[in-house]
Amino acid sequence: MLFAKKRTKAFHSEMRALSGLLLEMGKLAESQVGRIAEALATPGQIARIEVERDAAIDSLQRAIDLRAVETIARCGPAHADLREVLSMLRIAGQFERIGDLAKNIGKRLLAMSRDNHLPSPAHGLNGLALAVLEQLQDVLDSLIHRDVAKAINVWTRDEDVDRLCAVLSRELMIRMAQDPRVITCGIHLLFCSKNLERMGDHATNIAEAVCYMIEGRRLDDRPKADVTSAVMT
Amino acid sequence: MLFAKKRTKAFHSEMRALSGLLLEMGKLAESQVGRIAEALATPGQIARIEVERDAAIDSLQRAIDLRAVETIARCGPAHADLREVLSMLRIAGQFERIGDLAKNIGKRLLAMSRDNHLPSPAHGLNGLALAVLEQLQDVLDSLIHRDVAKAINVWTRDEDVDRLCAVLSRELMIRMAQDPRVITCGIHLLFCSKNLERMGDHATNIAEAVCYMIEGRRLDDRPKADVTSAVMT
Repeated sequence: MLFAKKRTKAFHSEMRALSGLLLEMGKLAESQVGRIAEALATPGQIARIEVERDAAIDSLQRAIDLRAVETIARCGPAHADLREVLSMLRIAGQFERIGDLAKNIGKRLLAMSRDNHLPSPAHGLNGLALAVLEQLQDVLDSLIHRDVAKAINVWTRDEDVDRLCAVLSRELMIRMAQDPRVITCGIHLLFCSKNLERMGDHATNIAEAVCYMIEGRRLDDRPKADVTSAVMT
Repeated sequence: MLFAKKRTKAFHSEMRALSGLLLEMGKLAESQVGRIAEALATPGQIARIEVERDAAIDSLQRAIDLRAVETIARCGPAHADLREVLSMLRIAGQFERIGDLAKNIGKRLLAMSRDNHLPSPAHGLNGLALAVLEQLQDVLDSLIHRDVAKAINVWTRDEDVDRLCAVLSRELMIRMAQDPRVITCGIHLLFCSKNLERMGDHATNIAEAVCYMIEGRRLDDRPKADVTSAVMT
């Protein structure tokens, strides 16, 4: 019994450390998306999204991976505890993907800043970035406060992000057909918009992991606006 | 000692079952990519990539997830064994992403089959699909035969896939600028090509996981041709 108690104490201290690393990772991802929204809000002055920030996210993920494996091996957590460690591993993977996508958008914004032919629906991307930022902030909140209701709310709102992306894609394609000079930038914007939509998907995956971590239940059949076919209409 | 032996036996039997599910998942992902390559090789007759196949991959992933968690909780595997279970979880996640990307390509091929303005570099996509298929076949082989050398070979060849994707993207953008009628199809092809490149990344991630699973060492600093900036040149 004493041994079990000791093990639980060691486990909880490990979990506190893991949570700290995970939140640090989440905050970095959030600030990356925030910087993208900022860069998009100041036309003509597109800032450089630091690639170093993504490196920091990657190294945090490696630290979490290592620590989680050690925690499982050393503490041998039982069902709910094990679920918690594995959920943290999964969430870290999602933050890493968000960081990667943000880095890619940063590169594209930089490439676009060298081009004078920016199609007008570029400002729509800012709205999409803000919507994704809000999703990310809310899902981080749900993680910090173990708030299942908030996580479910993020999960249901993913459809709105998908719809914003579809509208923007359609507008961009119309502009590109009208003026071939904007094709290069238009394609960068299409990929940026798709990347933001995927960031939204990752926020939704985190929301699912938060619910699973806390209540052990899975959210299935996520509402999804189909962007691929919407672009065709 | 008897208990430890018994636990090892139970663990090995669980691992055999998990391996079976994982290979089934890998084979499904491989056949999806194979069907894409096939559809691209028969111009004018683009086949429907079954969406049901992706649902089968998803349900296999859920089964692997559940079984892996149960295995850890029940058998409490030690370091190398734990590494193996967690690597399998990671590999399953990669196969799931490949399935998702294949489904998206299938939808785009279907949408394109309704459009008569297919830009000529479309056949380049077939070469890219075949290169990714080969990567996927080789990494599956490395998983089946626990062949680290083969996994490292897949890992180093990812750069070739990235380069093929960059060349194709450039060609597509030139064609789109020359003829606005091909813009819609051109954008679908750009996204298909990017999806194939990302499938290649997932094959590389699997190669990394295979090395880590078998030898416990991480392959860092993957060689990477930067497609985003290459498209701009």
